[in-house]
Amino acid sequence: MTLALGIDPGIATTGYGLVRLMPDGELVAVSCGVISTPKDTTASARLETLYADLRKLLRRYKPDTAAVEKLFFSRNVTTGIAVGQARGVVLLALQQARIEIFEYAPNEVKQAVAGYGSAEKRQVQEMVRALLQLDSIPKPDDAADALAVAITHLNTKRY
Amino acid sequence: MTLALGIDPGIATTGYGLVRLMPDGELVAVSCGVISTPKDTTASARLETLYADLRKLLRRYKPDTAAVEKLFFSRNVTTGIAVGQARGVVLLALQQARIEIFEYAPNEVKQAVAGYGSAEKRQVQEMVRALLQLDSIPKPDDAADALAVAITHLNTKRY
Repeated sequence: MTLALGIDPGIATTGYGLVRLMPDGELVAVSCGVISTPKDTTASARLETLYADLRKLLRRYKPDTAAVEKLFFSRNVTTGIAVGQARGVVLLALQQARIEIFEYAPNEVKQAVAGYGSAEKRQVQEMVRALLQLDSIPKPDDAADALAVAITHLNTKRY
Repeated sequence: MTLALGIDPGIATTGYGLVRLMPDGELVAVSCGVISTPKDTTASARLETLYADLRKLLRRYKPDTAAVEKLFFSRNVTTGIAVGQARGVVLLALQQARIEIFEYAPNEVKQAVAGYGSAEKRQVQEMVRALLQLDSIPKPDDAADALAVAITHLNTKRY
């Protein structure tokens, strides 16, 4: 009955997805969504909001284990720094809550969820929907991505 | 009598330097050093140590203002991510302590302290020593760098 929290970190929106592994191996979506931070403020104020909201989430759901998407700087270095800062705050909050932390690269998530590392975003989202037996693809994208990370973790570790 | 905290963030060592601006414009070094985190552990555990130690420092010295060195990814992307994460935790701790935060790029620090943006590290350190009227260059390097950031901030803002 392991409850896994998947996180897709970002400074504007951090996606989260909580998935429970049932005794029969079934995966059940418990919750998902995004932590959004106000645009018209400093990076530091946004990090404070992210930290406070994530702590609330951890207190509410008490996940057993967490999986955080790994960071890649393929496109924009400035964005990369901002995401790195958000990621640091996410790792801090998880560590302080004494939750074991695992990390998965985007291609590992695609491989685990859709069966191949270069799957399209939409294919991954459709597999998330199917694996969790949901009526529709979870919205917004960051929430669906975070569920994919949680699924990857539960399917990799097989608690 | 503004007390400025300069910070040079890193995952292994974060340099800090506290400089007070006296009424006559003199700059006085109050303290400097590094926050070190244990090598043989996870990034998350290191971030937790950094956060806890920085909070202690803030409670002890109660700086009025803080200046954090800006990040550049010139060399190593993996190192850059780790520094970005450390930087996020530093910004969080400063924000939570309600300290106003300023950021300076390495070349701005060189310009402000040594008079030109492409100054050698050693020249900057020697100017830090001279400006703060110290007998020798502060050790280790990260501590001297952090003092340089604090000096830059006080000389830029002229409180």
